[in-house]
Amino acid sequence: MSTSTALSRSASLPLAQQLALRFSERIQQRLILPGARLPSVRECARHHGVSPYTVVAAYDQLLAAGLLEARKQRGFFVREVHAPRAKSAPAQTATTTPAPIDASALIRGMFQADARHAPGLGTLPGDWLDLPMLQSAMRRVVSQSEEPDQLALQYGEPGGDPRLRSALSRRLEDLGVHAAPEQIISTVGATHALDLITRCLLTPGDAVLVDDPGWAIEYARLSQAGMRLLPVPRGPQGPDLEVMARLIAEHRPRMYVTVSVLHNPTGNSLSLASAHQILKLVEAADMLVVEDDTYAFLAPNHVPRLSALDGLKRTIYVSGFSKILTPAWRVGFVAASAKIVHQLTELKLLSTLTTSPMMDRAVAICLEQGQLRRHAERVISRLDAARQRAVRLAEEAGCQFVTPPQGLFGWLEVGVDTERLAQRMLDAGWLIAPGLLFSPTRRAGTLMRINFATSQDARFWRLLAELRKA
Amino acid sequence: MSTSTALSRSASLPLAQQLALRFSERIQQRLILPGARLPSVRECARHHGVSPYTVVAAYDQLLAAGLLEARKQRGFFVREVHAPRAKSAPAQTATTTPAPIDASALIRGMFQADARHAPGLGTLPGDWLDLPMLQSAMRRVVSQSEEPDQLALQYGEPGGDPRLRSALSRRLEDLGVHAAPEQIISTVGATHALDLITRCLLTPGDAVLVDDPGWAIEYARLSQAGMRLLPVPRGPQGPDLEVMARLIAEHRPRMYVTVSVLHNPTGNSLSLASAHQILKLVEAADMLVVEDDTYAFLAPNHVPRLSALDGLKRTIYVSGFSKILTPAWRVGFVAASAKIVHQLTELKLLSTLTTSPMMDRAVAICLEQGQLRRHAERVISRLDAARQRAVRLAEEAGCQFVTPPQGLFGWLEVGVDTERLAQRMLDAGWLIAPGLLFSPTRRAGTLMRINFATSQDARFWRLLAELRKA
Repeated sequence: MSTSTALSRSASLPLAQQLALRFSERIQQRLILPGARLPSVRECARHHGVSPYTVVAAYDQLLAAGLLEARKQRGFFVREVHAPRAKSAPAQTATTTPAPIDASALIRGMFQADARHAPGLGTLPGDWLDLPMLQSAMRRVVSQSEEPDQLALQYGEPGGDPRLRSALSRRLEDLGVHAAPEQIISTVGATHALDLITRCLLTPGDAVLVDDPGWAIEYARLSQAGMRLLPVPRGPQGPDLEVMARLIAEHRPRMYVTVSVLHNPTGNSLSLASAHQILKLVEAADMLVVEDDTYAFLAPNHVPRLSALDGLKRTIYVSGFSKILTPAWRVGFVAASAKIVHQLTELKLLSTLTTSPMMDRAVAICLEQGQLRRHAERVISRLDAARQRAVRLAEEAGCQFVTPPQGLFGWLEVGVDTERLAQRMLDAGWLIAPGLLFSPTRRAGTLMRINFATSQDARFWRLLAELRKA
Repeated sequence: MSTSTALSRSASLPLAQQLALRFSERIQQRLILPGARLPSVRECARHHGVSPYTVVAAYDQLLAAGLLEARKQRGFFVREVHAPRAKSAPAQTATTTPAPIDASALIRGMFQADARHAPGLGTLPGDWLDLPMLQSAMRRVVSQSEEPDQLALQYGEPGGDPRLRSALSRRLEDLGVHAAPEQIISTVGATHALDLITRCLLTPGDAVLVDDPGWAIEYARLSQAGMRLLPVPRGPQGPDLEVMARLIAEHRPRMYVTVSVLHNPTGNSLSLASAHQILKLVEAADMLVVEDDTYAFLAPNHVPRLSALDGLKRTIYVSGFSKILTPAWRVGFVAASAKIVHQLTELKLLSTLTTSPMMDRAVAICLEQGQLRRHAERVISRLDAARQRAVRLAEEAGCQFVTPPQGLFGWLEVGVDTERLAQRMLDAGWLIAPGLLFSPTRRAGTLMRINFATSQDARFWRLLAELRKA
């Protein structure tokens, strides 16, 4: 990360300009979010070992460049620019003042991050993935052996590659979810699936239950589409069913969107009892449930899925392969009732015409030959070991897990404001995922998400322990 | 095409059931559109050489299956089922009663069609594409030589592969369109580009000028998103500027969406004078213009682009590679002002997170090495020859071109109802593109689109001549 080195007194650039440049890079890379408060002049001066005059000069340059704004008595803030807003119905949460969620902040971090220095990473690091398997599948798709006429020279079928849909149908059987190939449609990653569902099945102004904490992109998409978010607290016991029942009674939501298994960021998976209770609530209210099973391959098959209990009557199952095969292929899918799949297929035509038949087929090949299953088993073992070590390091650093550590992510109480912490960590070259990125109201707090696979470096945890004390 | 064989008296299935099965297949494949009228009992009996009782029995089976509905005094119609509708603001055209456009009809035809029997095909046939070039580019992307860490194991950058954006920036220079790489964003085909633009820059209820005739998917997308379509007649002289001026004055549209070069289906390209006049009109009304340049590689670089005249101030340039490289890769792009590109990038994150960095890079490779340019030159020569022959055959069959034949498509006056003709042609195994698929009001008519590359078979034209006389 170019922004992690110390300021240099011997450099040709004056210190104030170096400091201004560093902040401006971070703001442009969105590593500091619009609306965020910069450190006070005194604090910044102490931290960087420069005089307050240098900091004032740097902030002045940023003000002049339009990157900051000064608010009386409150300090310097990153200006809100360019952010797209819902056009007709502005998004609101039912319980609190709306706060804009900058969905791209975390994502851009993901793109730029070097996994070795990104305990906040959202995916498995590249060296955990099976590049030879990916290359071999792609080579088969590109070669003559796999029907180049169909795969290389034509639009794909509207619903997706038939071989992929068959392979997915068999895979879903293993999870207890019965979906015929015709009940499955492929998409450009799980994100596209969730986007099609939002556009197809919701109307601006609809209230939607979401997990709190949860995934920022999902909040942002629903808000942008004009939905009202109703956050349901998600803890070690799963979603808070009392709050859910109350919100249903008060707001008559149309849908509940949830990560049922290895929830991001808490790692929580629904118990059988929770799943049953949730379905009873949503049945009584005649709601839909979107079950986002993005982390499916990192959990045992026997963990209960809402879609298995419900038989895809009012549940819509979404998953993808970014968290197990590679984020680069952009293949996801939906399994749902034939009627809903038909609607989604029509909208897919209008949104991307089709998905790439080559990428669909590459995933099918990995599934059909059991390669993906074996790869997933290896990843799970390796992740178990990484998790053990990360948990030990985290606890030695004085942090506590809010929910029992499972899967890829840990949800950690660090005892200090994590937005501030994120800035400090960046100074030292570490990218973390502060709690506000998982809050539907973008509340700063003392929680953060860690990726067990990328938080193995003891130096990170030592620094965290120091910063907690300071 | 399984539906093209004659009914068989010796088959084990009764004739009525064979007939019902044939209609039901076509309805399910959407080769007969919802809302379409079936032939009268008498006509159908004569055409298939069966008794009227057999036809009545077949229609009864289809009624019972819910595929048809009978309308008093009017006959039998394919039932409208499943079609997704705009949810809040229903689509309306300003001048006529709204009619639902079944966007999937033509598309599904494209997927199912055997190019040798599809004069209505929307793309180049597979054997006109350069499979070795495609395979070689994909092999390079899959191999180690092209940064597998970036291409195979990570999300792509939000705006798209930097090498693709640079290559596109250089390509656009050749068209006189000046766009820095930062002003370009890659998408899942041109369709995704148009979808992002609709969602980002329009608000339900906005009026939008569209070409008439034009591309059914674009009408359907705008309608589905709740826009009001304002059709502008497009003829040999280009768009009717008087009508355009009147519609602008009356309806204050927000945007004009147009295929400026080798317009689908007429083949018309804007003259310099038309382009200038259009820009004056939209500047005076402070509108945006979306220039869909999907057929860019089939036209000379010097044909004027609106975006070149305007300098991407109020124009938004969209193109893709489905019509020249392959429809299977699903790579398109937008070039626009930095502000609009920023907005589109944010929405791209919510809609598909990113595009596949592998597919982006594969297109970059084809562009960088001049392979695509040389391939396009070969296609243009071959298409010139094919067009000459098709024009001769069409004129011998008694048809007339409404606009001078250019590019991939011809827009043909056949003198008989083309919806009816399409059914007749299907019976004989030919897939054509009837005029209603290019009408914003889905009006049936006597026009149809032919693909010069796939209408080389003299038997098709002989049959057309016969059916015109009958």
